[in-house]
Amino acid sequence: MNTAFSTPAELRALIASGVWAKPTSGILDDYQQANLAVVPQAQAYDFLLFCHRNPKACPLLAVSDIGNPMIEFHGSVMDVRCMIPRYRVWKKGELVAEPTDLGEFWQEDSVAFLLGCSHTFDAPLGRAGIPVSPEAPAVYYTNIACTSVGNIKGNMVVSMRPVEASKVPLAMNITARYPSGHGAPVHVGDPAVIGISDISKPDFGVFPGVPEGYVPVYWACGVTPQVVLPNSGGDYLFTHYAGHMMVMDHTVDEVAGFSV
Amino acid sequence: MNTAFSTPAELRALIASGVWAKPTSGILDDYQQANLAVVPQAQAYDFLLFCHRNPKACPLLAVSDIGNPMIEFHGSVMDVRCMIPRYRVWKKGELVAEPTDLGEFWQEDSVAFLLGCSHTFDAPLGRAGIPVSPEAPAVYYTNIACTSVGNIKGNMVVSMRPVEASKVPLAMNITARYPSGHGAPVHVGDPAVIGISDISKPDFGVFPGVPEGYVPVYWACGVTPQVVLPNSGGDYLFTHYAGHMMVMDHTVDEVAGFSV
Repeated sequence: MNTAFSTPAELRALIASGVWAKPTSGILDDYQQANLAVVPQAQAYDFLLFCHRNPKACPLLAVSDIGNPMIEFHGSVMDVRCMIPRYRVWKKGELVAEPTDLGEFWQEDSVAFLLGCSHTFDAPLGRAGIPVSPEAPAVYYTNIACTSVGNIKGNMVVSMRPVEASKVPLAMNITARYPSGHGAPVHVGDPAVIGISDISKPDFGVFPGVPEGYVPVYWACGVTPQVVLPNSGGDYLFTHYAGHMMVMDHTVDEVAGFSV
Repeated sequence: MNTAFSTPAELRALIASGVWAKPTSGILDDYQQANLAVVPQAQAYDFLLFCHRNPKACPLLAVSDIGNPMIEFHGSVMDVRCMIPRYRVWKKGELVAEPTDLGEFWQEDSVAFLLGCSHTFDAPLGRAGIPVSPEAPAVYYTNIACTSVGNIKGNMVVSMRPVEASKVPLAMNITARYPSGHGAPVHVGDPAVIGISDISKPDFGVFPGVPEGYVPVYWACGVTPQVVLPNSGGDYLFTHYAGHMMVMDHTVDEVAGFSV
């Protein structure tokens, strides 16, 4: 079977047809990638406000109409049920499935949220001489509290990339240009300060090592909804599986321009 | 009576006590100013989503809890009922009052939204050699359609400042740094293109003239909710009166940093 692709639309078609189910890091440079969270309508207002109050962790790109799995973003339409390589499904707070398709789970009251992803700035970092591992980035739970809304509360999740010490300010400046990629870092250096006890054991993704002369740099991560939503009282929750993102039709620089 | 003030908190206290009710342009340079829209809880989700989908017109700063007139923004708490110099009140789509206090109108289901204001970048423009009139800026209805949400639909409102032709790119660059001041312009030049038939007759504010060698530059304006909300089916709507803003405790550069 042909699994070649050269555009996000071609990749999403391969994913939708079930022939491609890998992490989306290191592919289709410069295209915006997005995290997914799907909640019942009863929770949609609180989660929308949570995204506004926690823009670093949850940079909101698009919200679906209630019950409509076709989500629109600046003229591009994506099916959130099948165009992401892997999902996670919670029922009443319990993780019950990690399927490659949401079709059988989608509800009439489902509202989908696409949130920006830090894969977004990997290509701009690379061009600035700050190469990033093509594997799924190391992702950690932290002790950084989010601003809560109603029952939606908990700590931020971060992704980590090792950066040469002399290039940390450059990495901060470049990523600050991309709020849709979580913007500037939330922490630099000692993992213990943000509650990470063993940096070599990420909660998701692949630890790339931190070579001599490099510093671990941490960005807010769109896995955060998977911490704050499962026990917030909703009947269900659907998300992407960490590292397995929606790849969108717009480049990160286009997206950065849409809101300024 | 002493009407002197040197901080936003002192000004808000004077406004709350009824001794100060003027436009807020040209005062307290560099402090973030904000537009107000208050809607019933039944409309809060749609309006919150409208703000997300129209970030140039409605750069969202803060949302109150339902029924709570004390709105919080990064540790600062403001009473939206009395700390703005003048308000407008609609009942079932009809403008019924333009009071200096909202106390008698506030409802148990009221939700308040503070949206950034273009007064925000007047001081940074001035320091870059682009002086801005200290009077309330000229504000116009346009034919630029907003992205609608449910019944909330209509055209964008803009503010206009004349800029020396050679400095237009500089003005665009500076204002792009302040999404909380509506960011970069939405139009430059011919007013007819965006549906303004007579630039000398603004719908609100004061026409400052456009001297020879100057170009009119237009920014999205937080009066837009006063176009899209009155006939959207809500029982009531409260807003600030154009040019009469909430002056907040944070500087525009602090606010610009909060989300990146």
